[in-house]
Amino acid sequence: MKIEILKENLKNALNIVERIVGKNLSLPILDNVLIDTEDNYLVLSSTDLETAIKLWVLTKIVKKGKIAIPVKFLSSFVSLLPNEKITLEEKKQGLYVECSNLKTQIQGFNPEEFPIIPEFKNLEFIEVDIKKLCQGLSQVVDIASVSQSRPEISGIYFLFSKNILKIVATDSFRLAEKTIVLEKAVIKEMSFIIPQKPAKEIMNILMEKEENAKIYFSPSQIMFEVLMKESERPQIQITSRLIEGEYPNYQDIIPKEFKTKVVLKRDEFLNQIKTASLFSGKINEVKFIVNSKNNEVEIFAQSPDIGENRSSLQAKIQGEDLEVSFNHKYLIDGLNNIKSSEVIFELSEKEGPCVLKPVGDVNYLYVVMPIKST
Amino acid sequence: MKIEILKENLKNALNIVERIVGKNLSLPILDNVLIDTEDNYLVLSSTDLETAIKLWVLTKIVKKGKIAIPVKFLSSFVSLLPNEKITLEEKKQGLYVECSNLKTQIQGFNPEEFPIIPEFKNLEFIEVDIKKLCQGLSQVVDIASVSQSRPEISGIYFLFSKNILKIVATDSFRLAEKTIVLEKAVIKEMSFIIPQKPAKEIMNILMEKEENAKIYFSPSQIMFEVLMKESERPQIQITSRLIEGEYPNYQDIIPKEFKTKVVLKRDEFLNQIKTASLFSGKINEVKFIVNSKNNEVEIFAQSPDIGENRSSLQAKIQGEDLEVSFNHKYLIDGLNNIKSSEVIFELSEKEGPCVLKPVGDVNYLYVVMPIKST
Repeated sequence: MKIEILKENLKNALNIVERIVGKNLSLPILDNVLIDTEDNYLVLSSTDLETAIKLWVLTKIVKKGKIAIPVKFLSSFVSLLPNEKITLEEKKQGLYVECSNLKTQIQGFNPEEFPIIPEFKNLEFIEVDIKKLCQGLSQVVDIASVSQSRPEISGIYFLFSKNILKIVATDSFRLAEKTIVLEKAVIKEMSFIIPQKPAKEIMNILMEKEENAKIYFSPSQIMFEVLMKESERPQIQITSRLIEGEYPNYQDIIPKEFKTKVVLKRDEFLNQIKTASLFSGKINEVKFIVNSKNNEVEIFAQSPDIGENRSSLQAKIQGEDLEVSFNHKYLIDGLNNIKSSEVIFELSEKEGPCVLKPVGDVNYLYVVMPIKST
Repeated sequence: MKIEILKENLKNALNIVERIVGKNLSLPILDNVLIDTEDNYLVLSSTDLETAIKLWVLTKIVKKGKIAIPVKFLSSFVSLLPNEKITLEEKKQGLYVECSNLKTQIQGFNPEEFPIIPEFKNLEFIEVDIKKLCQGLSQVVDIASVSQSRPEISGIYFLFSKNILKIVATDSFRLAEKTIVLEKAVIKEMSFIIPQKPAKEIMNILMEKEENAKIYFSPSQIMFEVLMKESERPQIQITSRLIEGEYPNYQDIIPKEFKTKVVLKRDEFLNQIKTASLFSGKINEVKFIVNSKNNEVEIFAQSPDIGENRSSLQAKIQGEDLEVSFNHKYLIDGLNNIKSSEVIFELSEKEGPCVLKPVGDVNYLYVVMPIKST
């Protein structure tokens, strides 16, 4: 193998593939990037066995071939090279790198040891707008359960139905649901659960892309593919295993009615909860007192060792006065996922779930369970 | 105590004093800031017993008094308050904070338990330009030894002699010396050793100040004081203990002669050492080969597991060709302390110390020991 490539292009490509590497002492090949060639493209692949990524870079291929090289090392090395054309050449399982004032030889690994990344040729796919997908993922992905005791809720649920995609995550204390309208309706309803880590990587890696993504899936695997501009050749493919099992029937816990609805300024609300959180005790309890006479909501927290904090904010209130307590962390996470200047907070019975929504956007909701009153 | 203060002013002051807090489980008072009043100034103090800081803020004092409050907590709390005037009031060892939409009570501690910070009234002082002092400290402070086996070199040495201040640090493998010209000569020679941590805090806290600093010292303590603009009242005082003992006669190890002198572009040199460092083995060895025929310096590193790297850079060379090896970490640290576009590297015998200097600045030098050839 021998190729010529601009340092900047190689660096950018390595910065993406190095995100996914295994930390598997018994399989050191997973620390590597597989460097391969295909027509006039350099092809880089990395995998941690759960997620895999494959990336095509148009460049000058002098001679075909392949080699595996420790990816973190190669990425650190390339980032220090001058901004110019560099030559990479494979000889006897070594990678020879040359540019104007530097000659380097890096020990490589046998490329045949690199795991095979599953392919999804000739299968049906669904097309989605990447920007909408990544932005939607960013509003739900952190809510998935970190515990593995119920593996199905440790992932992100995707449900395609007609021209709607719903992305959902929950840890059983709160739930986030994002609705994305598809340009083209799907023929039959389809759903799957992606583990949280690959879902985050898909979001981070594809966030900057302008194109549509194609989603291919089999019962156990999924692939997100972005094509080159004005070409049928892939630019990037991210493959992930899927979580087996049935996602809970989450629609049942989204309350259909509410007792009290308040509309609040988002930034002020978030700030007052953060302030109150400093005074909350071990169970993170922050109390919420709706006072319709004064058109205000009072936020209260106390802890004997620290002191107490009482603040108020103006609100538009519909329905009954009530008092309800929340874990401040859950409210802060929900508000961080909402970017509108005003938020709707729909409160129910003391022990029933409540809902946070952005004002002016019906496509996002965040359900949160209150702390049961003692 | 009752005061009124703008949130921004209180926040900025707390951000400074919270830098110095003790982590002493048996003396929880060290987690606190002492809030006190003096004429129409709020006075904040904190200490970790090695370093202490005292800060004056002009504000409205309604009623005098004092209280101790956990400083990290207070700082987090104040940073979340709205940008407006806030009221602080001490009642029964509680601090009551009020602003437009918030009422808070924070449990405090008995201010009498707060350690006494040493005072330096009616002593002689030396005046120095703060900007020059902090900039000079930034070029030497990280070089001090981290080992406590020779406590005197774990600190930063200050030597005042006539109109010259020398700031020196060494860990016995390398040494950095900064020379600062004083506006006013000192009457007699004076020297002291400040521990590394307070030296760093002095640098970080005073870096932004425009005024001169007064340095007071006793045999065991030192104080850096900055006055209010156009006033004799202190704005900030930072006190530190001094390290006892004699600083080594470091002038002896600064080589007076060299065999070879090379002048190199600083950024390119630094970059090539960083690249080579990736290939250096366990002892961090990077080899330096001076080739006067080609007017270049070659940098070489290798390690059997990783590979090898050879790069070259143009140099102005005086003297003999030679080969000498260094620990790359020491060269990188030295070059990071030099900001000029070109550096002078004076090389001596294979086992003798070498010197890095900025081109165009005689006030800084960095001595580094080579790796003894095997």
